Amino acid sequence: MGYFISFEGPEGSGKSTVIKEVYDYLTQEGYDVIMTREPGGIRIAEEIRNLILNPDHQEMDDRTEALLYAASRRQHVVEKIQPALKANKIVLCDRFIDSSLAYQGYGRDIGIDEVYQINTFAIENCMPNLTLFFDVHPEIGMERIGQRGFKDRLEQAGDTFHERVYEAYHQLWQENPQRIQRIDAEVSLEEVIASSIKKIKEYI
Amino acid sequence: MGYFISFEGPEGSGKSTVIKEVYDYLTQEGYDVIMTREPGGIRIAEEIRNLILNPDHQEMDDRTEALLYAASRRQHVVEKIQPALKANKIVLCDRFIDSSLAYQGYGRDIGIDEVYQINTFAIENCMPNLTLFFDVHPEIGMERIGQRGFKDRLEQAGDTFHERVYEAYHQLWQENPQRIQRIDAEVSLEEVIASSIKKIKEYI
Repeated sequence: MGYFISFEGPEGSGKSTVIKEVYDYLTQEGYDVIMTREPGGIRIAEEIRNLILNPDHQEMDDRTEALLYAASRRQHVVEKIQPALKANKIVLCDRFIDSSLAYQGYGRDIGIDEVYQINTFAIENCMPNLTLFFDVHPEIGMERIGQRGFKDRLEQAGDTFHERVYEAYHQLWQENPQRIQRIDAEVSLEEVIASSIKKIKEYI
Repeated sequence: MGYFISFEGPEGSGKSTVIKEVYDYLTQEGYDVIMTREPGGIRIAEEIRNLILNPDHQEMDDRTEALLYAASRRQHVVEKIQPALKANKIVLCDRFIDSSLAYQGYGRDIGIDEVYQINTFAIENCMPNLTLFFDVHPEIGMERIGQRGFKDRLEQAGDTFHERVYEAYHQLWQENPQRIQRIDAEVSLEEVIASSIKKIKEYI
């Protein structure tokens, strides 16, 4: 079996840049690596995502949304992540279960435990072996995003929501000290990349 | 609060005919009644159903399907069933949670408890007050359907599957003797309708 590593953190944490650098580094080192993010190019998962993100669907209930994210995740796991792990690859995934726990469970106030239950139904035993949590305070993260000039729907949500998501990530990190490793993401990008590679090399 | 009654049973049990007769009867008696079935004309629920039933989606995993059914049910509950109950109506629903437990949980072998968990996430406390289980042996049910000349995808599934669904309904009935009332559906339609109305009048 391969090795499953998820990259998690609030908006503006830099994780999507870091994952690409980590992918390049590990590939150059000779590891067999794939990089993915939900819905991962999986047709059914893409269609579910389109349904969630359709701006016409203002009446969508938070729990409907959480179930749809779990359904999309399930199909991504079955069609892409599990086959890669069975082929002994390292799978790098930009956001996974912890995003649902932080954003839907805590941010939208459904409850972390309840969202965890539907997600364990979805992924069964396919939990990440290692999760890198890119820790950046929402004020700094949002400032970074502001500099990018474009905000998507989630990024436009209120500051209180992002504070809640930040708290949730800290709570998840404290409750899962084995699986979740914190990376200080308020330092320079070079330092964040270096810490990420160091953490991963300790584990694989 | 109104009264929530679900109609359940294997294929060919006659429940979809019976529900209409019960609706007419209760309406004539002066009750404020709505009759619905998933996805219930709810736009988001309809779109989720189209995704499930799309014959191109042969790669859809059983758990993805179960999560999508739960998501569709959630939206149906929030937009249609709960508002009707809050308006003190009697809601008659053709299939609800027990169909998922019997077909996905037991028939498809995901596990009744696991499918129950994602469905309680979906419906929260909106369980039927009363469930009529139309008990017909699969051999008789399938023979009735055969006489109709048209079989949908579920109806085309193998006999073993339908035996399993039948067993599941019996198990659910035995485990929920308060909520689930058995109706012998192997007798004449007139008798089935009469028993159903009798059971409902005992409860409302």
